[in-house]
Amino acid sequence: MTEPTPLQEPSSTTSATSATVSVVLGIPVDGAGRIAVSVAVADHLERTESLSVLGPDGSPVAHHELGFDRGTRLHVIEAPVGEVTVTYDATVSLAEREPEPVTEVEALLYALPSRYCPSDRVEAYAATEFGDLVGDAARVLGIAQWAHRRLSYEPGSTTSSDDALAPLLTGRGVCRDYAHLVTTMCRALGMPARYVSVYAPGLSPMDAHAVVEVAVDGVWRLVDATRLAPRTSMVRIGTGRDAADVAITTGLGGSSGAPRFEVTATAAPGLPVDDPAELVSLL
Amino acid sequence: MTEPTPLQEPSSTTSATSATVSVVLGIPVDGAGRIAVSVAVADHLERTESLSVLGPDGSPVAHHELGFDRGTRLHVIEAPVGEVTVTYDATVSLAEREPEPVTEVEALLYALPSRYCPSDRVEAYAATEFGDLVGDAARVLGIAQWAHRRLSYEPGSTTSSDDALAPLLTGRGVCRDYAHLVTTMCRALGMPARYVSVYAPGLSPMDAHAVVEVAVDGVWRLVDATRLAPRTSMVRIGTGRDAADVAITTGLGGSSGAPRFEVTATAAPGLPVDDPAELVSLL
Amino acid sequence: MTEPTPLQEPSSTTSATSATVSVVLGIPVDGAGRIAVSVAVADHLERTESLSVLGPDGSPVAHHELGFDRGTRLHVIEAPVGEVTVTYDATVSLAEREPEPVTEVEALLYALPSRYCPSDRVEAYAATEFGDLVGDAARVLGIAQWAHRRLSYEPGSTTSSDDALAPLLTGRGVCRDYAHLVTTMCRALGMPARYVSVYAPGLSPMDAHAVVEVAVDGVWRLVDATRLAPRTSMVRIGTGRDAADVAITTGLGGSSGAPRFEVTATAAPGLPVDDPAELVSLL
Amino acid sequence: MTEPTPLQEPSSTTSATSATVSVVLGIPVDGAGRIAVSVAVADHLERTESLSVLGPDGSPVAHHELGFDRGTRLHVIEAPVGEVTVTYDATVSLAEREPEPVTEVEALLYALPSRYCPSDRVEAYAATEFGDLVGDAARVLGIAQWAHRRLSYEPGSTTSSDDALAPLLTGRGVCRDYAHLVTTMCRALGMPARYVSVYAPGLSPMDAHAVVEVAVDGVWRLVDATRLAPRTSMVRIGTGRDAADVAITTGLGGSSGAPRFEVTATAAPGLPVDDPAELVSLL
Repeated sequence: MTEPTPLQEPSSTTSATSATVSVVLGIPVDGAGRIAVSVAVADHLERTESLSVLGPDGSPVAHHELGFDRGTRLHVIEAPVGEVTVTYDATVSLAEREPEPVTEVEALLYALPSRYCPSDRVEAYAATEFGDLVGDAARVLGIAQWAHRRLSYEPGSTTSSDDALAPLLTGRGVCRDYAHLVTTMCRALGMPARYVSVYAPGLSPMDAHAVVEVAVDGVWRLVDATRLAPRTSMVRIGTGRDAADVAITTGLGGSSGAPRFEVTATAAPGLPVDDPAELVSLL
Repeated sequence: MTEPTPLQEPSSTTSATSATVSVVLGIPVDGAGRIAVSVAVADHLERTESLSVLGPDGSPVAHHELGFDRGTRLHVIEAPVGEVTVTYDATVSLAEREPEPVTEVEALLYALPSRYCPSDRVEAYAATEFGDLVGDAARVLGIAQWAHRRLSYEPGSTTSSDDALAPLLTGRGVCRDYAHLVTTMCRALGMPARYVSVYAPGLSPMDAHAVVEVAVDGVWRLVDATRLAPRTSMVRIGTGRDAADVAITTGLGGSSGAPRFEVTATAAPGLPVDDPAELVSLL
Repeated sequence: MTEPTPLQEPSSTTSATSATVSVVLGIPVDGAGRIAVSVAVADHLERTESLSVLGPDGSPVAHHELGFDRGTRLHVIEAPVGEVTVTYDATVSLAEREPEPVTEVEALLYALPSRYCPSDRVEAYAATEFGDLVGDAARVLGIAQWAHRRLSYEPGSTTSSDDALAPLLTGRGVCRDYAHLVTTMCRALGMPARYVSVYAPGLSPMDAHAVVEVAVDGVWRLVDATRLAPRTSMVRIGTGRDAADVAITTGLGGSSGAPRFEVTATAAPGLPVDDPAELVSLL
Repeated sequence: MTEPTPLQEPSSTTSATSATVSVVLGIPVDGAGRIAVSVAVADHLERTESLSVLGPDGSPVAHHELGFDRGTRLHVIEAPVGEVTVTYDATVSLAEREPEPVTEVEALLYALPSRYCPSDRVEAYAATEFGDLVGDAARVLGIAQWAHRRLSYEPGSTTSSDDALAPLLTGRGVCRDYAHLVTTMCRALGMPARYVSVYAPGLSPMDAHAVVEVAVDGVWRLVDATRLAPRTSMVRIGTGRDAADVAITTGLGGSSGAPRFEVTATAAPGLPVDDPAELVSLL
């Protein structure tokens, strides 16, 4: 559909100090009302950004911001019927990357099963498959490797109502399914895990992306079993229990068809190399 | 198992101004570690209360409180192996009962599907079944009546891994299942709904209980499709997306078998009568 | 994809005495081996017919016939790698239409749950929804009307791994889903029901079709909740427990992608009108 | 409940030449009508046997026999309301044990997914888990060993509506679940597999039992992943697609609660030892 974004090549001598991201989102609104949009980077990130929301006639559409967990910002727009266009650009500093401690409240909430991560159903499966791995780090790396090996990345192979059992059984999925499966297995072993939507420089073809944060020895660590982009140049958008919490659009009275969107994301001064065996964290 | 609690009889001339509740909880801990317990009434309620946590040898066990949504308080105990006994008593004022407004953040979070309330899967079903009802109030009363008529209350008919589809299909369940089904149908129609564990004076046999709060014209309203106890003398414990968020015990490193518990709850000066066709709210 | 087949218009003065059907089936074989094909009309039908099976090079491919329940004939082909083309034509007499008695063995086998018809899971649902209807005829007509009203016909709305719960919950489906849902509800009420693939003159757009036979007062009656074609000019192909038994292609060592096919079916002297409130039977 | 049956001990010098089996079945009939009972050994077995069916008042109840696949015999009883008692005894010759060839019709029917064996959902899972095993024999032994290792035998851990995904995910089950899981994985790899209810001398505690027959190099081979009794002294009762086909009781108009039953089964001259790595067949 869209022009292929010129891709960056990773280089082992590079580490990213900033990322520049943009998205143009077209929402086909069929019922006027409020619609929440998740495109802005997390509130705690150092950044310059701009957001515009335009109605079918090109005039600005009223909107306001709503804050959620871990800096998640949704923008609630008063959507008129017709195509609404949301344009978002940001340049984000990636300079420091101190692992974030897991709070006690987070440790509880993100260990619970959720809509697409029915971890309570696979506790025995996880114990059998990963029970021999000792320690948080070995387990999370083992789960990520296992998911990477078992699944093949196939756009269109799952639907939005599929939970983590679909990729487990069918061996197929997209980033959402990889993230749900990793999240589910971590929680089934008692490890808190949460779902994070990100901009991912280096992803090819460029698209929206989703990864997992897992509590490893008391801090949040970043897992991407797809291995489709380097983790250290990713930029956090929304954080939640699973894909339900950070959907690109959520109807709040207004209703719309599936949005179309075009994403770009680049890292500067260049794209780093990612070693899947290394523990890294997301800002 | 336990002596039947002397039951109160409802009287149409009575309204409850306070409730006295207690629970004795026995937790068979098989793996030492932290376990969260949900027995305390919500933090915003005017109350006197006492909590004790004793180990297998009768000595006090360290614990601390953790706060969550809508006054939910979990007590995290450093559980030793063996039977841990938690005793909680409270007398709670029920005097005022102004409906609580639904915040914008709540309106978004509680409209999303969750582990036991896969509302995204039944949107068409809900539209067919309840689409003719106009307005929030008619819809929520219609859903409550429908659930009450369709389901029969049968202890043991469902398991802890069953979601709201189980009572829908099998026509059986306990309070948890009634609450999940009502919550699911409300969300499927776009109405925010949340799951609330409560003490319920008048419930017979006395037990832990669960109900639903639904956003009706901008305020939270209380639904109990079981109709097993009057709503206006119920006392809020935990509030969350579904039963996963407010389980009586949640392992946080420690592990235990199913807890046994004995609950009492009475209303003073007496037990009110409940009219299911009336909209009421929970403190 | 294909030229729209010229459609017949139903006329209330017409009853069909014969039907002429044809199918051209292209099977993309990626693993050489045996593949069973279900295109031939049932063995007890009075007919003239021809079948050809050609390999990628246009030469004939070996095949033989295998008989199953109620005249079902599969043709097992020794498929080479590449596109295999199966061409089938038949003209079938529809003259007599005496309802077929339900045997005792059939009454047992077709009352059992099957892969896509988990009737054991919806017994209570069926009892609640249809329990007031008295007698086989009222029940089967009630179920067919209910399914017709609840579902909308939407190609692509379900996948081949969906069972009858998918159309029940999502309110969408194709002929396969309508047939699975009707079959499931009938069995849940204790009524034997079986799945039948048919050629359906008058269907628009012309395609493969599937319907249900239900035991009504001791004889098999034909239900088509889609109401997309007159039942009395349909021609039976395969009969089984559900879609698994009568798939157009089934791998038996050989493997292939999804077949593409082009179907035609016309009734002579003309297309009858169908009254959904009437009980009719399939030859 | 019942006196423990005196158990036989296996001996490596023994091979069984006959088995003596019995069952007393109590059926609590709550709706008068026909009920099918599956207790008689398969029709092709050389045997002496006796069957009695008595009503609540001790008088004989009318019944007749119905034949299904692979010698399966159901007895259809005209059940009156109240406790119906079915008593069956047989002594069966186990002398010859020539593997039975898999017919072409069987190869097709038993490769299809069924109610409790949704093999179409786990094709990728099976390919990943067992794809390295070459040949039918290696695969079936690998699957049996895998199921034996992954599952723990826990009465009450599953319900009658659970399919093979329940033991896969929860790691628990009874003989029915072991058999469903093995059947499902075999079919997912394209190997025909069927479910067989058996009398199993040596089973402790003595109970009804279920195993699997899998097509291995053109003949039916017997798999019992529970390893709870020697395979070579088992006696076939019913053969079908899964547990739905060979339930101990099936309502055919009559309805009843769960039957209680007491089974005995012994082998003569003694109980053989079973080597799980060996391919054996069932008569």
